[in-house]
Amino acid sequence: MPHWTALVSVVAILFYFYTSLRVPRARRKYGILAPAISGNPDFERVFRVQMNTLEWMPIFLPLLWLFAFYVSDVWAAALGAIWIAGRVVYMVSYTQAAAKRGPGFGIQAAVCGVLAIGALIGIIGSLAHGG
Amino acid sequence: MPHWTALVSVVAILFYFYTSLRVPRARRKYGILAPAISGNPDFERVFRVQMNTLEWMPIFLPLLWLFAFYVSDVWAAALGAIWIAGRVVYMVSYTQAAAKRGPGFGIQAAVCGVLAIGALIGIIGSLAHGG
Amino acid sequence: MPHWTALVSVVAILFYFYTSLRVPRARRKYGILAPAISGNPDFERVFRVQMNTLEWMPIFLPLLWLFAFYVSDVWAAALGAIWIAGRVVYMVSYTQAAAKRGPGFGIQAAVCGVLAIGALIGIIGSLAHGG
Repeated sequence: MPHWTALVSVVAILFYFYTSLRVPRARRKYGILAPAISGNPDFERVFRVQMNTLEWMPIFLPLLWLFAFYVSDVWAAALGAIWIAGRVVYMVSYTQAAAKRGPGFGIQAAVCGVLAIGALIGIIGSLAHGG
Repeated sequence: MPHWTALVSVVAILFYFYTSLRVPRARRKYGILAPAISGNPDFERVFRVQMNTLEWMPIFLPLLWLFAFYVSDVWAAALGAIWIAGRVVYMVSYTQAAAKRGPGFGIQAAVCGVLAIGALIGIIGSLAHGG
Repeated sequence: MPHWTALVSVVAILFYFYTSLRVPRARRKYGILAPAISGNPDFERVFRVQMNTLEWMPIFLPLLWLFAFYVSDVWAAALGAIWIAGRVVYMVSYTQAAAKRGPGFGIQAAVCGVLAIGALIGIIGSLAHGG
């Protein structure tokens, strides 16, 4: 098992869980009762941070593990840590204003791009060499 | 392969699929045509049950498998079965009223907490002992 | 590692990523600024294509890998390729009109049904034979 990747995965999952914890808190703060998901832009930005993180989980986690298996556990974990950092920046800045969400988003997207390219090279190499 | 965990995973995925099947049925019942996702609180609660189950899939499934690999297949499967039971309670009670959604939600969240703690202990132990 | 399944997984993830890329483009085209997710049916259909693909990722990817491990890598990859094709049909047709979204949706759902049945048979067989 790629232990470092496993560790970073748990941290990423706990971070994503934290973005979801902020939603009921924002519901109370801005008076948006469940099941409503709109009605106040401050609430909607907190909700969109969770949703966007959710939307990227099935991109990030599978690519992270494919990279770990086909390339390197330690490099996968290092890239995963950068992804989490980008996600934290995205959460903090998007919560302030929608216009600020670019840089954090770009960091985490770039990490996923590197994971995808590395995984693809590793997979195609294994197929080509009958590995 | 952790066969019991694999079996519980398929059941959890089929249950999640079932929560998504209820959405088009609720669309017809309450007259909310796609692509709209709001307009009637009865529809919105059915939609939110699916969405919330979706939101927890990338928490539950990876933690379940990490727990299975690092701790125990049979215990992972037993905890996974409790998670599914909590999710069924959540679905039934949230569909009735938003205020009733707490207990089922708490059960499944507690299971994920146990899975996360167990996985973390197992992963850190493996890293510490060079396993 | 099931290399063909890994390859198809990366392609499926890149396709899902493409459905999410279409959302900011549709925001600009139809003047729906983040964090809003409604207000124009043409935008909402593009958004729902991404959301529905997201909703099926935790069904498709785990079943694909369970099928690969318990049944066959090559067959998993072939079924995964059909799933992607069904998803492309769904994206193109739902973007045109909500009423056209049926056939593509049916193809990808049928693939997931086959993956689920195959995985279940494989898992239960392994449990029964102590494999």
